[in-house]
Amino acid sequence: MLKQAPLNNSFRFRQVRDQTELLCASLSAEDCNLQAMPDTSPLKWHLAHTTWFFETFTLTPFSPGYRRYDESFQVLFNSYYNGIGKQHPRSQRHLLSRPGLNEVLEYRQHVNKAVSALLDLPVHADQGEISSRLYLGLNHEQQHQELMLTDLKYNLGCNPLAPVYVQSELPEREPAEAGFEFYKGGLVEVGQPADDGFGFDNERPQHKAWLEPFALGRKLVTNGEYREFIADGGYRRPELWLSDGWSTVQEQNWTQPLYWDLDADSPSVFTLHGQQPLRNEYPVCHLSYFEADAYARWAGARLPTEEEWEHACRQSHKPQQGREIDFNLKSLQPTGTTPNKGLRDLFGQVWQWTSSAYRAYPGYRVTPGALGEYNGKFMCNQFVLRGSSCATPRSHSRASYRNFFYAPDRWQFTGLRLARDAMPGAS
Amino acid sequence: MLKQAPLNNSFRFRQVRDQTELLCASLSAEDCNLQAMPDTSPLKWHLAHTTWFFETFTLTPFSPGYRRYDESFQVLFNSYYNGIGKQHPRSQRHLLSRPGLNEVLEYRQHVNKAVSALLDLPVHADQGEISSRLYLGLNHEQQHQELMLTDLKYNLGCNPLAPVYVQSELPEREPAEAGFEFYKGGLVEVGQPADDGFGFDNERPQHKAWLEPFALGRKLVTNGEYREFIADGGYRRPELWLSDGWSTVQEQNWTQPLYWDLDADSPSVFTLHGQQPLRNEYPVCHLSYFEADAYARWAGARLPTEEEWEHACRQSHKPQQGREIDFNLKSLQPTGTTPNKGLRDLFGQVWQWTSSAYRAYPGYRVTPGALGEYNGKFMCNQFVLRGSSCATPRSHSRASYRNFFYAPDRWQFTGLRLARDAMPGAS
Amino acid sequence: MLKQAPLNNSFRFRQVRDQTELLCASLSAEDCNLQAMPDTSPLKWHLAHTTWFFETFTLTPFSPGYRRYDESFQVLFNSYYNGIGKQHPRSQRHLLSRPGLNEVLEYRQHVNKAVSALLDLPVHADQGEISSRLYLGLNHEQQHQELMLTDLKYNLGCNPLAPVYVQSELPEREPAEAGFEFYKGGLVEVGQPADDGFGFDNERPQHKAWLEPFALGRKLVTNGEYREFIADGGYRRPELWLSDGWSTVQEQNWTQPLYWDLDADSPSVFTLHGQQPLRNEYPVCHLSYFEADAYARWAGARLPTEEEWEHACRQSHKPQQGREIDFNLKSLQPTGTTPNKGLRDLFGQVWQWTSSAYRAYPGYRVTPGALGEYNGKFMCNQFVLRGSSCATPRSHSRASYRNFFYAPDRWQFTGLRLARDAMPGAS
Amino acid sequence: MLKQAPLNNSFRFRQVRDQTELLCASLSAEDCNLQAMPDTSPLKWHLAHTTWFFETFTLTPFSPGYRRYDESFQVLFNSYYNGIGKQHPRSQRHLLSRPGLNEVLEYRQHVNKAVSALLDLPVHADQGEISSRLYLGLNHEQQHQELMLTDLKYNLGCNPLAPVYVQSELPEREPAEAGFEFYKGGLVEVGQPADDGFGFDNERPQHKAWLEPFALGRKLVTNGEYREFIADGGYRRPELWLSDGWSTVQEQNWTQPLYWDLDADSPSVFTLHGQQPLRNEYPVCHLSYFEADAYARWAGARLPTEEEWEHACRQSHKPQQGREIDFNLKSLQPTGTTPNKGLRDLFGQVWQWTSSAYRAYPGYRVTPGALGEYNGKFMCNQFVLRGSSCATPRSHSRASYRNFFYAPDRWQFTGLRLARDAMPGAS
Repeated sequence: MLKQAPLNNSFRFRQVRDQTELLCASLSAEDCNLQAMPDTSPLKWHLAHTTWFFETFTLTPFSPGYRRYDESFQVLFNSYYNGIGKQHPRSQRHLLSRPGLNEVLEYRQHVNKAVSALLDLPVHADQGEISSRLYLGLNHEQQHQELMLTDLKYNLGCNPLAPVYVQSELPEREPAEAGFEFYKGGLVEVGQPADDGFGFDNERPQHKAWLEPFALGRKLVTNGEYREFIADGGYRRPELWLSDGWSTVQEQNWTQPLYWDLDADSPSVFTLHGQQPLRNEYPVCHLSYFEADAYARWAGARLPTEEEWEHACRQSHKPQQGREIDFNLKSLQPTGTTPNKGLRDLFGQVWQWTSSAYRAYPGYRVTPGALGEYNGKFMCNQFVLRGSSCATPRSHSRASYRNFFYAPDRWQFTGLRLARDAMPGAS
Repeated sequence: MLKQAPLNNSFRFRQVRDQTELLCASLSAEDCNLQAMPDTSPLKWHLAHTTWFFETFTLTPFSPGYRRYDESFQVLFNSYYNGIGKQHPRSQRHLLSRPGLNEVLEYRQHVNKAVSALLDLPVHADQGEISSRLYLGLNHEQQHQELMLTDLKYNLGCNPLAPVYVQSELPEREPAEAGFEFYKGGLVEVGQPADDGFGFDNERPQHKAWLEPFALGRKLVTNGEYREFIADGGYRRPELWLSDGWSTVQEQNWTQPLYWDLDADSPSVFTLHGQQPLRNEYPVCHLSYFEADAYARWAGARLPTEEEWEHACRQSHKPQQGREIDFNLKSLQPTGTTPNKGLRDLFGQVWQWTSSAYRAYPGYRVTPGALGEYNGKFMCNQFVLRGSSCATPRSHSRASYRNFFYAPDRWQFTGLRLARDAMPGAS
Repeated sequence: MLKQAPLNNSFRFRQVRDQTELLCASLSAEDCNLQAMPDTSPLKWHLAHTTWFFETFTLTPFSPGYRRYDESFQVLFNSYYNGIGKQHPRSQRHLLSRPGLNEVLEYRQHVNKAVSALLDLPVHADQGEISSRLYLGLNHEQQHQELMLTDLKYNLGCNPLAPVYVQSELPEREPAEAGFEFYKGGLVEVGQPADDGFGFDNERPQHKAWLEPFALGRKLVTNGEYREFIADGGYRRPELWLSDGWSTVQEQNWTQPLYWDLDADSPSVFTLHGQQPLRNEYPVCHLSYFEADAYARWAGARLPTEEEWEHACRQSHKPQQGREIDFNLKSLQPTGTTPNKGLRDLFGQVWQWTSSAYRAYPGYRVTPGALGEYNGKFMCNQFVLRGSSCATPRSHSRASYRNFFYAPDRWQFTGLRLARDAMPGAS
Repeated sequence: MLKQAPLNNSFRFRQVRDQTELLCASLSAEDCNLQAMPDTSPLKWHLAHTTWFFETFTLTPFSPGYRRYDESFQVLFNSYYNGIGKQHPRSQRHLLSRPGLNEVLEYRQHVNKAVSALLDLPVHADQGEISSRLYLGLNHEQQHQELMLTDLKYNLGCNPLAPVYVQSELPEREPAEAGFEFYKGGLVEVGQPADDGFGFDNERPQHKAWLEPFALGRKLVTNGEYREFIADGGYRRPELWLSDGWSTVQEQNWTQPLYWDLDADSPSVFTLHGQQPLRNEYPVCHLSYFEADAYARWAGARLPTEEEWEHACRQSHKPQQGREIDFNLKSLQPTGTTPNKGLRDLFGQVWQWTSSAYRAYPGYRVTPGALGEYNGKFMCNQFVLRGSSCATPRSHSRASYRNFFYAPDRWQFTGLRLARDAMPGAS
């Protein structure tokens, strides 16, 4: 795993940690303690849990003489690591008015100082492992940064007042040109190469896969296209849906994507910038797997497999990493970007559902100990999403990245790109 | 209904309204937005709803030119008045981080000013009705003061940190002498007399009831006595329970009253003064109707009817009304009081379950309009409790007062006093 | 309790037991094993449970050398007697394809023979208790006869084929004259007198109650009247409903009584005689307490208390007991009867909801032992119904009879008669 | 698809149809109407639904002048074909006492005659399609034959009397030798070849897949081995489980496979031959995916992918097809077989969970029309099982067969075979 000089580590640590707190800067303590469903944790809990992660996996084992900020936090802010011990029930996180937001921010300072001190120690035997865990912790925190924004959106979205997180004017967009890119497939390599910087264990090992010829949509499916699906009876025609999807549509009375309001005089959508007009040119967003799959079927296409997506992505371009800032808080809604050649908007707009069930790659090895619970135990009943979204930190995306959610989940920035089988040799 | 000079009205209004805010003085905005179950509203919601009550029922109809603070509050802070309009769903009150606590306090100021101005108007035709609604609103607010304390207790009680609301040393008590008072019954009067100051519609009209001779326990059942019931297998013996009670015991795995911890090394109980030792001499508290009924059966006794309780109370003493302060925040746990002659602790310790289903008195008339929803529509599947508790404002109790909760409810300060049939002439 | 010569006992025993089996004569084994909700037991289970009752409470304690038909039946056919032991879960009764219907009928024969033998024994010391339990068992079986018909109706009613239990032509009826009977009230006696033949423990002791002047509807509320309530928005106006009732209406999407189909071209109703036209002149039936209460409120009236009903009934006439047959299987739908003077249709049409919560009468004593579970443990959250229905055995009704069901229950033959407060002296 | 002479078709049709009825021969009508959970349909429903399938997809479109037995059956016995129309709710199938078992058997005769007549028609244009649908219908019916046995087992298993379906003595077995077979993998073919007789659409098209070297357990995991897992705390150690699996274990209080009773004096298991001793040498059965996966993890191995299983199977031997009888009703419990060389018990014992999510093969095309709902719409959240079980008709298994169930499902005859990664070249 990544080896970097202590100085850089310290800088990067501060940079990521500060970013997390910046996301809460404009919010009240009450805002930060909302939890509208068990899946969406309070932002305060995210602030504490990401801190707990460093305390538990870095300070406790490696920092001599480290004293925990509060023993009770071991349980309160453990998410799902049975190897560490018990967990406060997920659905009750909003009941923790104590510790208050200020105390959690103090907890962050306490741990930040201790980690900085640990990173400043002279060269020693554990340095490789510490560095490795540091970068795992930072990537973990970046994942939570995205969750903070999606959870916040959902939590605020349950308030009839439709609160604004950041005031912003969203741009108008030109309709993007459609069309498909063709790939001849064959025996390809999938997964993160061994010496390619940080990656999660679920991206490895790199391995071979056989692909038939296929085509991938150049652009993301848009709101306007999705409205045609709705207008054509999309939510009322069982033949377009998976069986479990159709049950969900009926039980949940779904008639449109999450956050949409087509019934108002003028169609609108709830965003982190408040209630906004629904623009046809923007990528459609907040779809469940069921909806993405039904749309693709209606469109005479299908969802790509994750192997197809990754192969096409590697032939296209890499995400722009290393930018100085990870977030543009004025732009937390997918708007699509200026067309460039080939596949557009692979990253930075919406996560793209694939038809691939989340599973272990051939030869996958779980990390020993509690850290092994990070990814492996979720390889069941979830689908892989590829790319990244407008809420993903910009330094946190890559061709091999595997996001995963349950088929009915809609509160992430999730959309789709179409795929098709292709004749061999087509282009 | 009560007729008082405008000056007194203004004073009383400020007094009650200030008391409500005082209850929140030591709490954070996060504390004030907790809701651990649908029954327990956030304190912020109580602050707003009691204000909404004056705005809706006093200012809107009677204050010329009154401008509502915020139109959306009509729905957000309507509890259950269908006659007024829609209501924000009860179970989602904790999702209202906006309006924030400060804004709700401003809302209170806005309404306070308008009510004061209304009360200061020169003599006019609506004055009687305004005064009547004023006192209804103040009694309503006092009911919410008690709910704020019981809801807060429940909400904080779900936090493993067992937060302290008010630091306090609870007193030791001597065991109280047991025994029964005897009453010969006959044709008695029940309910509030016509000219007896403020009362809710459900306390009226005064009416006749026939009572057989009965006896009433001089004191409340204590923790120590209840522990004997538990030790004797009380929670494991179906013959002691109502059928619905036994189902509840099994479904909820009840083995002790709410907030008790008998499994710790030293038995303790969660209180608004934090975790405290469980003292045998204190009145037992936080019992459901089912538990109170089962205990009485185990003890070879029964619960009193509400008519028996009121008749005995009227022959005993009245609650001490008119005290200057309504709350002693250092004493929000029933501890029992120094024995006096006859029935003890009728008021100010725990609400006492009666065996009487909550129903309309003969000749009961519902108030016209939305205010008619205050009491009447709840006369189904609930049981009457009599007396008052340590969390009841001291100026808010009387012999005819009828509190009511569902049989499984445990989060109020609810306990019991035993009753027995008596031979005629016994004493 | 009733003292009768052994010969009469034997005859009555056979008479009631045979009647039970006659109710199943036209049904298949599949019909007899239906259970559409936990409340509605399979008819086969009723056949077995009523037999278990004699086996458990009469044969086992009093019949020397009696050998149980099958040990496993002690658990399978115990309804709710914790004092006897465990019970097969109520909701799983339909899973008992074994024992089959034929075997259960054999079980009945086995027990019938043993009871007959016991009744034929020469005079001995236990005879009084045996006779007492015999009549309890027979009245118990009669209660189950009614439940068999109501459960069967519900179970068949879930079949889209709307099966016919008994083919029958239902009569046309003339509209009945409305109006109220007046009663001056005062101190009255309620409950079964001590020497008045068989009665359940919940009807005793006779006791005094004070009644204000009241009036009682001469006739039952009819389908036609109830349709006016529906046409007037009855199911859409919260102000007409108890709070718990309104919640139920919304959760269950109630828009009409159980079994009604107002949406068909021609309004119809499912009956034990198949789908039938909905006749305005018939008494309305299959109402919950919530619906009966809402109708009464809409009609500017109220439900009677059980004391009012019994007092009026005793001044009117007694049910016709002692008829030779208990059932007319051609008439298992309330149709109303020819008007006679005074109160009509007190018995034999529909059970009439009262506003009285089911509770112990003053001085009520529970029978010792498991038989004490018969009635007492259900005195919570249920409402008393008075009279009897078209499905009640004719020898099984009396002025003091107390039926009881939960407020949302609709599958019994339940309707209503209106009541009103009256001025003293009015007539 | 298969082309056969009309004579053979008729014979095969009668053979399969008769077999279905034979499965019910020893059961009562009550037995045949049991439904203990929504997943397990009454046997009578299976008898009718398989008949509905021929009526709907063969007779209605192709048999001139065919008259349906009963119009209402179109809805009552439609399982999940939205393209055909509405369906009677799955969970309410047990409420259909009408039509009775005898009437359903008449329905079968009615349809059998019509199908036979259709097959006897002189050569005509639709013959290919009719033959194709005939064989689809027969394979469909064979699937239901297995479901009848598994549903019956579950439904009878809920009866505390542990009824016996077929009396039988189960054999003792010698412990089977363990060990793994090695495969070098590479680019292999998966799925049914184009000209290989009947197959479902989900088995096609044959396609390429890349396999890393792997090893497959020669034998099925046994009861004895699984008991070691239990004894080692298998059901209490979260680190062995998928996250969703661990939640299920806790919610369902799983401590052993379905039907096991380890708490009795002598461990036993419920089977279609009644309660039987639990024999260590038999293959473990009635495991969920979660349990199979946890066991494999505990054993230091993993589940095979479906591609690995099929590849190994093709290199081993094919199932013995074409036997005269499809069922040995004396042997409806997996007992393991005499060891032969290589992989043992691929077929005829227990379905073997694979780690492969059920999905469309590359190039999969859904059949047009309602028949397209047969398989495709279930390709979500289920796992593929390979092989066949003791309840699978012997003529109904093949190397490419894909069975699929949800991860928590346990009522099928489901067990496992271990797999491992292998070094290239190992053997």
